[in-house]
Amino acid sequence: MNTFPRPHILLLAALPLASNTAFAAEQTQAISRTETRAQVAAPAAYFTGNASITPQFEANAASPLTGGYVTFAPGARSAWHTHPAGQRLLVTAGVGRTQAWGGPVVEIRAGDVLWCPPGVKHWHGASPTQGMTHLALTGSIDGKNVQWMEKVTDAQYLE
Amino acid sequence: MNTFPRPHILLLAALPLASNTAFAAEQTQAISRTETRAQVAAPAAYFTGNASITPQFEANAASPLTGGYVTFAPGARSAWHTHPAGQRLLVTAGVGRTQAWGGPVVEIRAGDVLWCPPGVKHWHGASPTQGMTHLALTGSIDGKNVQWMEKVTDAQYLE
Repeated sequence: MNTFPRPHILLLAALPLASNTAFAAEQTQAISRTETRAQVAAPAAYFTGNASITPQFEANAASPLTGGYVTFAPGARSAWHTHPAGQRLLVTAGVGRTQAWGGPVVEIRAGDVLWCPPGVKHWHGASPTQGMTHLALTGSIDGKNVQWMEKVTDAQYLE
Repeated sequence: MNTFPRPHILLLAALPLASNTAFAAEQTQAISRTETRAQVAAPAAYFTGNASITPQFEANAASPLTGGYVTFAPGARSAWHTHPAGQRLLVTAGVGRTQAWGGPVVEIRAGDVLWCPPGVKHWHGASPTQGMTHLALTGSIDGKNVQWMEKVTDAQYLE
């Protein structure tokens, strides 16, 4: 078994890469190593409390979703927002909350999978006492994947 | 905060569901609870060793990927195969191996993300001594998301 360095994109190429990298990149697998994708703080303008984002992958022509983990400290949550092409959330750790506009606050736990249809106004975040991490898979329309709105008040969050 | 039973699909509806469930299902969030999606053994015809699949979600009109976790015991791996619309793999635990046809066997670890373009023949599985779990996000063309081929021999796996 070969051992490899771990660059940002590792091409598993059967062809000599130097001769035609663009072609090879379309003809074989690519690996993005975890240590090349730094966790970043979620923007304070759109989140309440401490949340961080760990990017996973960008959309491409064959696979139109962008993926990233979002980790919320207890009490943290997104602002209200919509997704023009919808969003799939896979809760991977902890206990959280979500709400669609006009509906109840609902608890979500590790293993639960959420589908938010295009245009539905929602928020998601941790529970008041437990952190929560989810993988967000988000489509885009004309390059836009989210429309941010007002923040979730404490009264809404603690409903 | 409301507490809810945990049926297969929990509709977070602001509208009376009984009056127009189909409409409501398109207008609000849906949650699939983890305990409703049983882990199943991966089919022996297409896998070597012990592997199991935990379905996460099906494709829909707005989001064309199907998602599921696959857990491989040490030494277990898929058969060779291609994906007509490509496949994204997010390694979520353990240490594994993957190979594109004609290329080297490469180690993959928790946090790594793999992109396999449409039509590229590949396999993926655990390392000989460590198990591996990945989330597989797979598109489809005309309802087909995989073309299975021959099994990976021990000689290929242990290259």
